[in-house]
Amino acid sequence: MGVEIERKFLVTDTGFLEGRQGERLIQGYLSHDRRATVRVRIEDQRAWLTLKGETRGARRSEFEYPIPVDDARAILAEMCAEGVIDKTRYRLPAGSATDGAGLEWEVDVFHGDNQGLVVAEIELRHEDQSVPRPDWLGEEVTDDPRFYNSALSRTPFCRW
Amino acid sequence: MGVEIERKFLVTDTGFLEGRQGERLIQGYLSHDRRATVRVRIEDQRAWLTLKGETRGARRSEFEYPIPVDDARAILAEMCAEGVIDKTRYRLPAGSATDGAGLEWEVDVFHGDNQGLVVAEIELRHEDQSVPRPDWLGEEVTDDPRFYNSALSRTPFCRW
Repeated sequence: MGVEIERKFLVTDTGFLEGRQGERLIQGYLSHDRRATVRVRIEDQRAWLTLKGETRGARRSEFEYPIPVDDARAILAEMCAEGVIDKTRYRLPAGSATDGAGLEWEVDVFHGDNQGLVVAEIELRHEDQSVPRPDWLGEEVTDDPRFYNSALSRTPFCRW
Repeated sequence: MGVEIERKFLVTDTGFLEGRQGERLIQGYLSHDRRATVRVRIEDQRAWLTLKGETRGARRSEFEYPIPVDDARAILAEMCAEGVIDKTRYRLPAGSATDGAGLEWEVDVFHGDNQGLVVAEIELRHEDQSVPRPDWLGEEVTDDPRFYNSALSRTPFCRW
């Protein structure tokens, strides 16, 4: 078990991603319960089942288990009630702020029904840790439930 | 991945369980979606996360993964939206029918809010396999959704 402390921002300009290599992530949700979301994710030849608890501020309990990719494909096809999320994730060091050394930006460029949406997340060590501010960083959306991936699978960006 | 072919019956008399050793099972549900239920179960010092697909007749897809017991306890406490199921499971050979050799009855004696309910399940190799009929076997309830454990966690027997 872990506790996630994560903040999420819009990305205003994606020029900084040019020439970078991302990873394609395919994921779906088995549960949208307020108390828990259950996610299956495939990244190349690996897959995980992830349970996330209720979000409290920027904190969230998380349990993650590796599963066979063939299981993940069958689960996505058979059990994921709504849309599947398809996105490319870029990882960038976020070491520019005073206490930002070792931090990392995860920038998600969405495809399919969420095309046009680009979001950057940073996982912090404690809730009041300051966040580095690269010039491509836009509005914070940590507390906006529309940007939860589980919400985007039900109500994708193209339908906003 | 597996496919479960399971039939479920009420138990009319529990005298045959006397002197037998059962296992205590504690379980809860993270999702009651029509397409998938997500169950966490603790049995002594072992625990599993189990995904079950939509029931079609007696068939149901199932994926099961062992997880640490401490995770399971935290998931039950934090993420299982409704009641937790508490029951003692007895396993009995069901070898009396012609093609029943190697089959097994799982007899669940429920506690807590489901006290008074006793159910027997048998997992078959194919859907038309004949089921042995011990004299304690009552009405078949395979197709009655009230007897799904996920339903019993929401609407326990004491509230019927």
